[in-house]
Amino acid sequence: MSEFFPDIKKIEFEGKDSRNPLAFKYYDAKRMVAGKTMEDHMRFAVAYWHTFKSTGSDPFGAGVFDRPWNKGATPMAIAEDTMAANFEFITKLGVPYYCFHDRDMAPEGETFAESISNLETLVAKAKVYQKETGVKLLWATANLFSHPRYVHGAASNPDPHVVACCAMQVRRALDAVKELGGENYVFWGGREGYETLLNTEMKREREQIAAFFHMCVDYAKKIGFTGQFLIEPKPHEPTKHQYDFDAATVLGFLREFDLYDDFKVNVEANHATLAGHTFEHDLMVCATAGKLGNIDANMGDPTLGWDTDQFPTDINPITRAMLVVLEYGGMGTGGLNFDAKVRRGSLDTIDLFYAHIGGMDTFARGLLAAQSIIDEGQITEFRQNRYVGWDKDFGKSMLEGKQTLESMEAKALELGEPKAESGRQEMLENILISAI
Amino acid sequence: MSEFFPDIKKIEFEGKDSRNPLAFKYYDAKRMVAGKTMEDHMRFAVAYWHTFKSTGSDPFGAGVFDRPWNKGATPMAIAEDTMAANFEFITKLGVPYYCFHDRDMAPEGETFAESISNLETLVAKAKVYQKETGVKLLWATANLFSHPRYVHGAASNPDPHVVACCAMQVRRALDAVKELGGENYVFWGGREGYETLLNTEMKREREQIAAFFHMCVDYAKKIGFTGQFLIEPKPHEPTKHQYDFDAATVLGFLREFDLYDDFKVNVEANHATLAGHTFEHDLMVCATAGKLGNIDANMGDPTLGWDTDQFPTDINPITRAMLVVLEYGGMGTGGLNFDAKVRRGSLDTIDLFYAHIGGMDTFARGLLAAQSIIDEGQITEFRQNRYVGWDKDFGKSMLEGKQTLESMEAKALELGEPKAESGRQEMLENILISAI
Amino acid sequence: MSEFFPDIKKIEFEGKDSRNPLAFKYYDAKRMVAGKTMEDHMRFAVAYWHTFKSTGSDPFGAGVFDRPWNKGATPMAIAEDTMAANFEFITKLGVPYYCFHDRDMAPEGETFAESISNLETLVAKAKVYQKETGVKLLWATANLFSHPRYVHGAASNPDPHVVACCAMQVRRALDAVKELGGENYVFWGGREGYETLLNTEMKREREQIAAFFHMCVDYAKKIGFTGQFLIEPKPHEPTKHQYDFDAATVLGFLREFDLYDDFKVNVEANHATLAGHTFEHDLMVCATAGKLGNIDANMGDPTLGWDTDQFPTDINPITRAMLVVLEYGGMGTGGLNFDAKVRRGSLDTIDLFYAHIGGMDTFARGLLAAQSIIDEGQITEFRQNRYVGWDKDFGKSMLEGKQTLESMEAKALELGEPKAESGRQEMLENILISAI
Amino acid sequence: MSEFFPDIKKIEFEGKDSRNPLAFKYYDAKRMVAGKTMEDHMRFAVAYWHTFKSTGSDPFGAGVFDRPWNKGATPMAIAEDTMAANFEFITKLGVPYYCFHDRDMAPEGETFAESISNLETLVAKAKVYQKETGVKLLWATANLFSHPRYVHGAASNPDPHVVACCAMQVRRALDAVKELGGENYVFWGGREGYETLLNTEMKREREQIAAFFHMCVDYAKKIGFTGQFLIEPKPHEPTKHQYDFDAATVLGFLREFDLYDDFKVNVEANHATLAGHTFEHDLMVCATAGKLGNIDANMGDPTLGWDTDQFPTDINPITRAMLVVLEYGGMGTGGLNFDAKVRRGSLDTIDLFYAHIGGMDTFARGLLAAQSIIDEGQITEFRQNRYVGWDKDFGKSMLEGKQTLESMEAKALELGEPKAESGRQEMLENILISAI
Repeated sequence: MSEFFPDIKKIEFEGKDSRNPLAFKYYDAKRMVAGKTMEDHMRFAVAYWHTFKSTGSDPFGAGVFDRPWNKGATPMAIAEDTMAANFEFITKLGVPYYCFHDRDMAPEGETFAESISNLETLVAKAKVYQKETGVKLLWATANLFSHPRYVHGAASNPDPHVVACCAMQVRRALDAVKELGGENYVFWGGREGYETLLNTEMKREREQIAAFFHMCVDYAKKIGFTGQFLIEPKPHEPTKHQYDFDAATVLGFLREFDLYDDFKVNVEANHATLAGHTFEHDLMVCATAGKLGNIDANMGDPTLGWDTDQFPTDINPITRAMLVVLEYGGMGTGGLNFDAKVRRGSLDTIDLFYAHIGGMDTFARGLLAAQSIIDEGQITEFRQNRYVGWDKDFGKSMLEGKQTLESMEAKALELGEPKAESGRQEMLENILISAI
Repeated sequence: MSEFFPDIKKIEFEGKDSRNPLAFKYYDAKRMVAGKTMEDHMRFAVAYWHTFKSTGSDPFGAGVFDRPWNKGATPMAIAEDTMAANFEFITKLGVPYYCFHDRDMAPEGETFAESISNLETLVAKAKVYQKETGVKLLWATANLFSHPRYVHGAASNPDPHVVACCAMQVRRALDAVKELGGENYVFWGGREGYETLLNTEMKREREQIAAFFHMCVDYAKKIGFTGQFLIEPKPHEPTKHQYDFDAATVLGFLREFDLYDDFKVNVEANHATLAGHTFEHDLMVCATAGKLGNIDANMGDPTLGWDTDQFPTDINPITRAMLVVLEYGGMGTGGLNFDAKVRRGSLDTIDLFYAHIGGMDTFARGLLAAQSIIDEGQITEFRQNRYVGWDKDFGKSMLEGKQTLESMEAKALELGEPKAESGRQEMLENILISAI
Repeated sequence: MSEFFPDIKKIEFEGKDSRNPLAFKYYDAKRMVAGKTMEDHMRFAVAYWHTFKSTGSDPFGAGVFDRPWNKGATPMAIAEDTMAANFEFITKLGVPYYCFHDRDMAPEGETFAESISNLETLVAKAKVYQKETGVKLLWATANLFSHPRYVHGAASNPDPHVVACCAMQVRRALDAVKELGGENYVFWGGREGYETLLNTEMKREREQIAAFFHMCVDYAKKIGFTGQFLIEPKPHEPTKHQYDFDAATVLGFLREFDLYDDFKVNVEANHATLAGHTFEHDLMVCATAGKLGNIDANMGDPTLGWDTDQFPTDINPITRAMLVVLEYGGMGTGGLNFDAKVRRGSLDTIDLFYAHIGGMDTFARGLLAAQSIIDEGQITEFRQNRYVGWDKDFGKSMLEGKQTLESMEAKALELGEPKAESGRQEMLENILISAI
Repeated sequence: MSEFFPDIKKIEFEGKDSRNPLAFKYYDAKRMVAGKTMEDHMRFAVAYWHTFKSTGSDPFGAGVFDRPWNKGATPMAIAEDTMAANFEFITKLGVPYYCFHDRDMAPEGETFAESISNLETLVAKAKVYQKETGVKLLWATANLFSHPRYVHGAASNPDPHVVACCAMQVRRALDAVKELGGENYVFWGGREGYETLLNTEMKREREQIAAFFHMCVDYAKKIGFTGQFLIEPKPHEPTKHQYDFDAATVLGFLREFDLYDDFKVNVEANHATLAGHTFEHDLMVCATAGKLGNIDANMGDPTLGWDTDQFPTDINPITRAMLVVLEYGGMGTGGLNFDAKVRRGSLDTIDLFYAHIGGMDTFARGLLAAQSIIDEGQITEFRQNRYVGWDKDFGKSMLEGKQTLESMEAKALELGEPKAESGRQEMLENILISAI
């Protein structure tokens, strides 16, 4: 087996005073935090697409990354090299998981049959690599957005013929995930939305998607796939408006179409911020509903209006995110997948290591900070104390449905004007940053 | 009765070639459009708060409007003059409806009892005016955001004592709406959201709101109020993040808490755009769910990040909005309320007339354009034709739940690669603008 | 010569009641408006890149446009077909101008010499076409952003070797423009900005650009190119932050580096809005400075945070734009170049016609509306009257530098509190929309 | 003298392990950093307006702060108490400077003469306090935006009578700053912009402002005020569009109107971000021009579209800001003024302490991190090395104006295709965050 990162040794934890750019300063996989190893808290995954298939092209410029695994004579040869690079990279980085789209792993063939066969061939190889390396599959998905046939949508396409193609791809991707022991299956509806309502029947399209999801749920049961289905919200891009705008919209959709029990949500930081929320907001929406299924870890750029998918290095929002994750019991079968790419100017393969190390260290630091905040208890205690009135008396009985507007009015008249207490936002923020 | 607009006569329709700034160019109340008068299509309403109680203050400057109805010696005298101005203005403008918050109409008293009494006094007067003028109440609401007691929220307040105050206000506001024959009751949760999750229990707060809404529904039944309850989404402002972010979020909330049958949505143009949607998007979300209850008509400024509440003069989005309204059967018991204010530099009372005339003409023009588009049929026909595959064969049966991933895959393998048709967005947009 | 649009005849003006989607409703080339033909007011140009070289790819999907002129056996054969399509399209559309980048017209060669030769070959052909068809070159430019060598910038590159390549490309592009009688030369600094200040010397990079521009000015003089140099501002994209953020920034740069007399500005609507301005704002900044050199006509999408480059159909801002253009004497040697592309779903070549027709009609309608507003005079008169105080007395003398803070204070003390007049924004907006 | 913060003792430095919310964890005033005390690096100032005159009102709600210094019987009594609170607060906080608007310190009188007299009275008292406490005046300014007379602008007002009022206010404010030994004088043009170009002559208004500034410069010379004039950019709010959009726009304006040598720029973090820049971008624009005059320290909220003026606790951008400040030699006569306010729900006076402590600690931490980055040298060295080609050979001579497009082309042809090096953004970001 050829080595694609010959100059890189396994990345080790060296502690925060290390000046070695190829060492972890905070991520110490086996360190125990609140009864669990860091590795088990985080369940980091590497994304096949950004890390191995990105060329560095952008809407104004051609690809710039000269990757040694992209030099094979045929698409399948390239695919095999890419897979070797994937497992070598992950092993050297020391991450337990990876994630992929069907078309990242296996090239589109000349015919549908060839595409299916390509995927099967590569999945068989991946299974061997997984066994050899111990690297596991966090989740996979079908790419239903890159091919020209999806120009007007995937499951929401006006043409059922296209939806038949989606069915074929998802079926085979589900087979692949099952074969590889993947723990989740993700849907991201990159083309499920619209460019203009002048040519779009929103009602029909949402019903099509729902019917499609029901077929997927049925198929998973049939083949005995017991992993978790996840939907990944995004407000816009590539389409003008996507149906899965944000976490709240997705949860409402699942309720509307009787899919609520079968899906959880994959929250991507940069998608949440593009939707006008903070990262921790969308996490909280899911966590309070018991629906936090996975995190696509990255960070956006608030001065730019598109999905920049940068590796996360901004410690403040990550700490807030990990507070939500820890307080609501983690991410279940999900983990932290780096849906992040090196900047176009970061031309070398070594930059892939720097980027992942920075992202992992930032999350590790956020985990430690969040746990120390929880251990200290000041923020939690302050927050919970504000609501004590709802655990007793007329507050409690109102929540139990035993009060009326009249009985509450009587209470107001009896008690007179309320007196507000300070919300102490600045003090709480100071506690938060002191923990970092 | 003193006259507050002595120089203004009733605003008349003079047609589009008129150069009289105090005449309608498009709004012709009794003109029939698709079997209904313009007046009945639009059901325009004037907003008490912006039109009569705005001072023109902004976060950086004091009030600038010198209104003759604000010169009374006492708050109640001012309230009476304001009411007189309201009905004179509406009558001269020729609009059938108005809308108000409890505290627009009646001043907060020294005690809760006095506040209740003030409202009752003014409601009685309004009832007389309504009878005299024929002006009707489209909807009313309780102001649960201006008073300092709501600094940490209204129904979502950590302190149930504050929620008791909300109950008192909403009870009395519901009594007022019933007394005045109002056709709807609106909730806008200006303080129902959070500034920081560090001191906020999102789960509790949403449950509080739901329990509160159930009390409201029960009370309405008890007093025999048969009007429609409406929720008005807004993403941010005044709070950092409001729970009723957009239409989809509101519909999801209603489903979650068993309130779906009791509420519809009041879509405000500028709130939709602040949430990252177009106006017509949020209308469509509601219309396809049968939940479009009312429109708060205004327009925002895409270069500014807050609710500018401008009078709508941008004909393109208004035409798109009226297309949704017409295609989905109108707004039921709702109408078009101008939740819009004159710019701070528009100092004179006559500017209130210019502003409303412009807004009404723009919507009237949009109505005419939308109806002509429907009558011509090109856009509708093109749009519907795209989906014909779903009304037959495997498309139809998939929607009926009779297909599987395998059977759909078989269809794909049989049919081969699909061929996409042009979506014709530019041609459709040209048709749209030609109708204006 | 093969025909690429065999089903399309010359697009004719049929008036606003026409329902022919392949006819102009407002654009009537020879119609006189204020003493000049519409054609001479607008000086429309077709953009080679979007119209002929766009594939419909986006960051999430492959190309979808199957263009008959892209089927040649070699890059040069494709380039020749593309050129034929360009002149056929423009002739049928009835537009007087086109614009191109060097690499749109002529493919990058294996060597620098071959690239130069390719361009010379195609320029010679274009010259023949221009003569045959009467179509003229509005402007051209060098593409200094697509090739991987520009990954870290063009003239702002940290490596002077790359800047030498820029010099070569611009030299040859200037030769081409001169050869083709082009009336302007445009610089758009798509890679002239930065991704992170951590690796960027902003001061150096801006100085490099200035030195580069001085070389260009010198070369133009040397070869006798008398066309106008233009800079096209854009705030972000593809780089995180571009140096030519907006019109004001560009004018400041030109003053700082002694380039003010040699350049004007090419204002693109969608770039202005991405910078937080309205289109008419950036036009006004340039027009009041005598620096409005050209318009890149398109429209953006305020719900999306990137350059959507849509064909303009939004009549309100276009009318405002044409008001600025007319009031400040037009665009000199510039014109209206459609830097706009059909949506990805508009798959057919006929969509290119629909799109241009809509854009041209919208600008024509805006021209007519703007001229009628000027002819009527209400808006201009109102606006100018507000400032009469500055044409006399202490207002005038203050502008002449003859007053002091003390003398002005004395005036204030003498006159007492000023009384503000209404700014009448709503009335003026109503007049504006009535003209449309 | 009454004490307004009786429970608060002087805030002390206790180090980063302290859990005392009323102690500094990073700010250690006398600690030496690169040869200067922290205090001298930062030159922190407290803002009179936010800290003492804010009521907590917002556009949707009334004031909520019950401040003991706002209870006096007359405006002047309140003003005196406020001043006492100001100096007590600053002394206890341990900050060397304060900043004010004329109308923060002294109430508007019934007449212009009374307003002038009020200010003189309070200035005399402030002078005594300054002497007693050692607290100094960093800068002051005139409030030319709150009073209704400024509804259509201050120096840009269409009515010269209003500009006379501006002259009076600025004259007296300059007198005050001189009397109090203030080190700078700031102009923020909150009303210098426009709502609509339909009623605005942009050219005239900018010329008015320039003429006004020249009068100010002349007056300062006349009275011997040697402090620095500063302009504070802001893009929007309260006006739709402000002339001083950002730093680059301000520098261009100064060049255009021959004011460049008399002004520097006061960069406010939240204003920079509202203009579509990062904080460090606008600092860099000023620093590279030698025009960084002061920082208005705060942070905005990227999910909200207005100036939230929050106390800065986000360490990442602050570190980047301090890198610029340190590398370009500090802020001269300026400092770090907290143009920041506690959140509306932070009701108690003690929250003012928490907020300032958090902001000061964040900047202190940023200073230490930035200095350690500079001391280590990796980032600076990497950045500078990228540009070595410009210090020699044809790079150098191009910057000296000695190359031509032809000579550069010859160089390109000689050297062939350049080879790009990685920009190492992720590695550099990792180094940055490791320093925090």
